[in-house]
Amino acid sequence: MEFSINQVAAMLGGQVKGNGNAKIKMLAKIQDAKEGQIAFLSNPKYEQYIYTTQASAVIVKKDFQPKKEIESTLILVEDPYISFTALLEEYHKLVSFQKTGVEQPAFIGENSTVGSHIYRGAFSYIGNNVTIGHNVKIYPHVYVGDDCVIDDNTILYAGAKLYSGTRVGKNCVIHSGTVVGSDGFGFAPQEDGSYKTIPQLGNVILEDNVAIGANTVIDCATLFGDSTLIHQGVKLDNLIQIAHNVEIGKNTVIAAQTGISGSTKIGENCIFGGQVGVAGHIVIANKTAVGAQSGVGKNTKEGHRYNGSPAIDLKDWFQSYAIFKKLPDISQRLKELEAKVRLLQGDSEPVSKE
Amino acid sequence: MEFSINQVAAMLGGQVKGNGNAKIKMLAKIQDAKEGQIAFLSNPKYEQYIYTTQASAVIVKKDFQPKKEIESTLILVEDPYISFTALLEEYHKLVSFQKTGVEQPAFIGENSTVGSHIYRGAFSYIGNNVTIGHNVKIYPHVYVGDDCVIDDNTILYAGAKLYSGTRVGKNCVIHSGTVVGSDGFGFAPQEDGSYKTIPQLGNVILEDNVAIGANTVIDCATLFGDSTLIHQGVKLDNLIQIAHNVEIGKNTVIAAQTGISGSTKIGENCIFGGQVGVAGHIVIANKTAVGAQSGVGKNTKEGHRYNGSPAIDLKDWFQSYAIFKKLPDISQRLKELEAKVRLLQGDSEPVSKE
Amino acid sequence: MEFSINQVAAMLGGQVKGNGNAKIKMLAKIQDAKEGQIAFLSNPKYEQYIYTTQASAVIVKKDFQPKKEIESTLILVEDPYISFTALLEEYHKLVSFQKTGVEQPAFIGENSTVGSHIYRGAFSYIGNNVTIGHNVKIYPHVYVGDDCVIDDNTILYAGAKLYSGTRVGKNCVIHSGTVVGSDGFGFAPQEDGSYKTIPQLGNVILEDNVAIGANTVIDCATLFGDSTLIHQGVKLDNLIQIAHNVEIGKNTVIAAQTGISGSTKIGENCIFGGQVGVAGHIVIANKTAVGAQSGVGKNTKEGHRYNGSPAIDLKDWFQSYAIFKKLPDISQRLKELEAKVRLLQGDSEPVSKE
Repeated sequence: MEFSINQVAAMLGGQVKGNGNAKIKMLAKIQDAKEGQIAFLSNPKYEQYIYTTQASAVIVKKDFQPKKEIESTLILVEDPYISFTALLEEYHKLVSFQKTGVEQPAFIGENSTVGSHIYRGAFSYIGNNVTIGHNVKIYPHVYVGDDCVIDDNTILYAGAKLYSGTRVGKNCVIHSGTVVGSDGFGFAPQEDGSYKTIPQLGNVILEDNVAIGANTVIDCATLFGDSTLIHQGVKLDNLIQIAHNVEIGKNTVIAAQTGISGSTKIGENCIFGGQVGVAGHIVIANKTAVGAQSGVGKNTKEGHRYNGSPAIDLKDWFQSYAIFKKLPDISQRLKELEAKVRLLQGDSEPVSKE
Repeated sequence: MEFSINQVAAMLGGQVKGNGNAKIKMLAKIQDAKEGQIAFLSNPKYEQYIYTTQASAVIVKKDFQPKKEIESTLILVEDPYISFTALLEEYHKLVSFQKTGVEQPAFIGENSTVGSHIYRGAFSYIGNNVTIGHNVKIYPHVYVGDDCVIDDNTILYAGAKLYSGTRVGKNCVIHSGTVVGSDGFGFAPQEDGSYKTIPQLGNVILEDNVAIGANTVIDCATLFGDSTLIHQGVKLDNLIQIAHNVEIGKNTVIAAQTGISGSTKIGENCIFGGQVGVAGHIVIANKTAVGAQSGVGKNTKEGHRYNGSPAIDLKDWFQSYAIFKKLPDISQRLKELEAKVRLLQGDSEPVSKE
Repeated sequence: MEFSINQVAAMLGGQVKGNGNAKIKMLAKIQDAKEGQIAFLSNPKYEQYIYTTQASAVIVKKDFQPKKEIESTLILVEDPYISFTALLEEYHKLVSFQKTGVEQPAFIGENSTVGSHIYRGAFSYIGNNVTIGHNVKIYPHVYVGDDCVIDDNTILYAGAKLYSGTRVGKNCVIHSGTVVGSDGFGFAPQEDGSYKTIPQLGNVILEDNVAIGANTVIDCATLFGDSTLIHQGVKLDNLIQIAHNVEIGKNTVIAAQTGISGSTKIGENCIFGGQVGVAGHIVIANKTAVGAQSGVGKNTKEGHRYNGSPAIDLKDWFQSYAIFKKLPDISQRLKELEAKVRLLQGDSEPVSKE
């Protein structure tokens, strides 16, 4: 991954001022950049750095007027921040999809097929009857159980685990240590106080553009033919618990360490803070927002914001909590008032209530 | 795994009506079932589906009177739901214990022995001096450290990790990514503000019939000869933290993301909701129930239910929380009452307390 | 690892009474010790065991006067507890650093170098351009991505995962399943309700003497050249979430299941209980202490203690919570007072407020 400044400028539709043949390998912040790197200048308060940076190239606004001499080659564009971000994304894609080929040893079972431009890291495991699309990247120590399907451009980072029958859509990312398809927590109490395991026979489906952080767990559905269902565009952070038969609607975002209990249905475009708990068998309406550490025990209303455990309307909760912090004062004032009223009622002297 | 309908009927003690020679490969819900699958009809509201299902066989109550023609073969039994559940369990056992043999490469150290009908997946690791019973299933990427003992019929799913010296009983299930036997969190503060590691030299013992979800962690005991002890029949969900020297009594059930601090002793038949925290060095009595997201800081009483953080009696807590939600109203009423009393006391006019 | 009692006594600067040539393999508690093991007697209430123990040697205070005959060899020292602890640490180091060599198959990429006395377990993976110091122990299923640097005496337990570019200092310990360097949770909302991934291009730096429990996650920084930074001596427990661009100061200790949100800067010598949540973009002062399950939403003051969610001063919070538990009583008393005041105001009869 090495481009000439001219190539980068062409990509950005920008104009080169200086030596366009120099090579660029990496992006950096203007105050840190070294030779072979490209930076950008957008916020005027960083202008000082452009006169001292060792960056081979700097992306600047096309009407930028230098106050001193600049050693770096300039690329003149409409909006340097947008151009740099675009470059960042391109670079990220190149890095993410750079790995190809099969490192040995890697395991692949019977009747399994893989597309083109695949990466299969050493010690990665693909079971039987697995179908894997094009441009999929399977890092070392990934486990893909039997009968899984993984669609194009999906990345499974080191040590991600998919139980048998999991289906993953296009352009998904699953980070290290995440487990998809483990048994739901289902046990039937017996008369002697012990529990009998309820077989968990469903699977998990992740639609397209789903991103999942590290060490998260998504359990499979209980029954044959049922699925725990994560719709397209859902983003899950690290260490999240998604129980059996949960459904999460399109473009919902859930922060780290949140847990969703079994059979709950979450709508589209919801936002959950970190360490939230959601009870089982409830319905979270579209565009619900839940504050960090809250516990949602009941169905929610579309577009509403909730907080607390059990969660109530966010504004109401904060008003109550404001008074909670003054409770010692309130308790004291109540006690004083009781004494005064006792006096007014004609008691000879105030008696403090224990 | 393919049975004739006659074989299935014999297993269930049921009577066949129709072609008993057709083959069945899988179980399904009556509304989804296809050829080669078996379904059941118990709830009358699903009766409509029996006339259109493609299931090769349907289990029905023995006095079931069809209103129309049915294409599927019927198996007549006392209780279709119980029969189907029994079939489900049999199927699940067959699937769970289906894998046998050793996939290559798999690692096994010196002086380690394995029983019969073992599965050792590719990239599974068994250290030195390990003893593994019969019918144990060790999925890919499982790590079994030195000196471990694993008894019959136990399943370790992909990527489960057992540190040296761990002992696992019969019929246990440990899901992917779960870590058993990592160091307890023990550090001695030094005068310069740094911490010195306290060596963690004990182990973890899981008795029979213990089930553990995915990405859970159970730390080892601190001292030689001591064990973090999980008694028989305990069921732990995903992402749970069990600290060093904890003991969990028989048939206790703990939901996801709960954490138990060091040296706490939990009784039998307790039930913990999700995201509960339990302090260290306390005793949780038998049959204690703790609501989700609670924090238990003190010993509990047998059979009692707790909620809140710090947790108190469940009913008391909910009564307090009901008032918490009305605190702005209470604060306002107190303010008004103060003004009224001031008036009654003869103040010329009410002054609002800031 | 087998020493004669004479060797152990020499190590401890103690005096041998009895057969100093007997061999010792292990340490044990005096009530459990067997032949070949060494125990200690410090607390007089355990003295009874010294007359029956099968320990080959017992460490005792130099002025210890036995009341009966003792079969074990004695080692006389100034302080038996300190001597035993020193022995424990030595033993622990020996055990921890016992493994050496390379088990096959193990993977190492191009341009990577390893120091002396390395252990590389079977199925461990080291990418390209990795630099590994002396005496580093890399257990099975460990993943070390490209361009990582790991300094001397560091232990990575089975299944620990380091993403590309991670830097780990000397004497660090990372337990099983922990993920270092996964993508921060960064997504830019789009007009159609979907989210666009913000590339995460920084890395994670762990300084010297950092210990991290099992199944914890530390995300990388967002920008090139930036790092999520864990300073020397930090101790992190299991299942912790450290988001992108967090900085944790020297010797700070964080208990299990706590989560720190993005870009927050935590000072030195702080102590966090379990299941704490900390908001993003805030500053936690040095020596801050936060109670379990609290949620810190704002900057803190040096040396202060906090509790609650949102967290306030610890003492204030407990005073408020004490009243919270009495809220039903307070509500009732307020109601009664309102009735009394109404009477005093001349209302003909009290009307209960609904």
